[in-house]
Amino acid sequence: MLGCADIARKTCEAIAEAPNARCVAVASRSKAKADAFAAANAPGAKSYSSYEELLADPDVQVVYVPLPTGLRKEWVLRAAACRKHVLCEKPLAKSLAEAAEMVEACERNGVQLMDNTMFMHHDRLVDMKKFIDDRAAFGAVKHVVSCFTIPFGNDEDFAKSNIRMRADTEPLGCLGDLGWYCVRLSLWAFDYEEPEQVSCHYIDKTSEGVPITVHAVMKYKGERSATFDCSFRCAMRQWGEIVGEKQTLNLDDFCITQRKTDASFVVSKSGISEKAITFPKTVVATETSSGCVQHARLVRRMSELAAGAVDGFWPAVALQTQRVVMALDASARRDGAWQAVHEA
Amino acid sequence: MLGCADIARKTCEAIAEAPNARCVAVASRSKAKADAFAAANAPGAKSYSSYEELLADPDVQVVYVPLPTGLRKEWVLRAAACRKHVLCEKPLAKSLAEAAEMVEACERNGVQLMDNTMFMHHDRLVDMKKFIDDRAAFGAVKHVVSCFTIPFGNDEDFAKSNIRMRADTEPLGCLGDLGWYCVRLSLWAFDYEEPEQVSCHYIDKTSEGVPITVHAVMKYKGERSATFDCSFRCAMRQWGEIVGEKQTLNLDDFCITQRKTDASFVVSKSGISEKAITFPKTVVATETSSGCVQHARLVRRMSELAAGAVDGFWPAVALQTQRVVMALDASARRDGAWQAVHEA
Repeated sequence: MLGCADIARKTCEAIAEAPNARCVAVASRSKAKADAFAAANAPGAKSYSSYEELLADPDVQVVYVPLPTGLRKEWVLRAAACRKHVLCEKPLAKSLAEAAEMVEACERNGVQLMDNTMFMHHDRLVDMKKFIDDRAAFGAVKHVVSCFTIPFGNDEDFAKSNIRMRADTEPLGCLGDLGWYCVRLSLWAFDYEEPEQVSCHYIDKTSEGVPITVHAVMKYKGERSATFDCSFRCAMRQWGEIVGEKQTLNLDDFCITQRKTDASFVVSKSGISEKAITFPKTVVATETSSGCVQHARLVRRMSELAAGAVDGFWPAVALQTQRVVMALDASARRDGAWQAVHEA
Repeated sequence: MLGCADIARKTCEAIAEAPNARCVAVASRSKAKADAFAAANAPGAKSYSSYEELLADPDVQVVYVPLPTGLRKEWVLRAAACRKHVLCEKPLAKSLAEAAEMVEACERNGVQLMDNTMFMHHDRLVDMKKFIDDRAAFGAVKHVVSCFTIPFGNDEDFAKSNIRMRADTEPLGCLGDLGWYCVRLSLWAFDYEEPEQVSCHYIDKTSEGVPITVHAVMKYKGERSATFDCSFRCAMRQWGEIVGEKQTLNLDDFCITQRKTDASFVVSKSGISEKAITFPKTVVATETSSGCVQHARLVRRMSELAAGAVDGFWPAVALQTQRVVMALDASARRDGAWQAVHEA
């Protein structure tokens, strides 16, 4: 644990539930803080008063980096240089160049890099894929729409003082923190095909330009598209919809599941009734994928990779997500003008 | 009935169910068609082989105009000149100037103008309003998101030959046909406050520029917003979500109800659990408004107004919807650049 942020506490819980992982050390700039964190969240773990000491510990195989976005590159590079595998918070970095440098450093040092995007690891995705890939029933995927909003920002001083809003360390604001998941869901639904162009608006932002509320459009070849909204100033929402030509797939908790181990989705279709002006809806399937704690599953996978061979898929998809996020940011800074993703 | 389109058949059904309305006459350019339509859908109604004859009939009090958008202005003006009240299909017109002329002509002649936007007349809206207006529980409305997509366009020749895609009579394509409802829902949710600026993209369009798939963003004062997507090339969807600072209100069939008489909505809130990384969701209320056939209710209201005093609300809100739709079209034709609504 490179730091004692609240998210590190949650990651400790996931580690405790993964059969092949153990928290062996915690580092903080304050020894007292590291001690207290270890005692409360990782009994038996060593505690260090510097990140460097932790990276020098030969018992440490994987480093979790929950530091603010602006500090991630430095510590991922240092961890890679020490031959530690890296589980990194999202967004990966402040810029695409930084993210590419991180990916390259991990590759060069033969260590696994993975972003902490938990939903990718729930069994539900495997079950969803079967429905989406049934092109005869579902039709081609035409559109993906999602949202992730959390009401952090209803206080007067949120934009001025919250750590999520600091222009130096979190310049991507809610786009990096929440939109990251929405971008990833649409990349997943389109089999990691990259959007050609994106358009994005910062509906709300701090005086320094850090986005608080964002609307985004991603355009794919063949008149397909994805949209999302994310915000720190709306009620909690995190739904996703994958729209085919014939059916739709909806999930109400795509990002963090509502229940600890189970996650559901619904496939449905509607049509117009000939008898009355109604659009009756037919639920094709309501599936529940059980017994999977997605965060623990992520940790388990990370441990497997650390013990085995590096999987290039994870750094590649993290970098792709960063590329789309940066293209969205570039568009927003030009007032929503279309931005080619490959030029971002 | 000024014409025998399929939607006129459905309006006849609604008239039959309204206690204070009767279809007294049907007009078509073909007498045989008018006869057949009357026999099948409005037994006892007179049939005319010209629209002029119908407008001259003193038994006719309200004229329903289901003609293609490009023809509506002419016939609404003629109907108003004949002192007939007008129920007009949406969009009202091809342009804001035309729509304004129609509204002005009806006002000058002392006749009611109303657009055929059925969902506005379901009791559900009254029930929804109570939840939205409970600011202590719901918080301020920050965002409205909706969609209306119908899979009309999956045939190869849809864009070339479908009547919905004709640049001369339906230049607003799916934006006018489906987006109209989404715009209206957001206007309703924001108490008819007008968005300041809009941005819109035609993701798919015909060779002549008629939109087939549309994504829209509407920006309101105070960092509030509304978005929607509409398309002729996706599975049937017509959901709406009204997002407060603390709760959300969702409906799955905002436009045309799934069932004939009942319509539901759900109010919910989610929060993060302290015990595990989950976002448990609490359903605050699942309400069903029963016994209301929204189309028949619209007809009943129209008949009441025709028998009583004209209500300026309906032409005003139709004109406002047209203004927002035209601003969206103007933005789309400038590749999504922000368009001030009051300048549209």
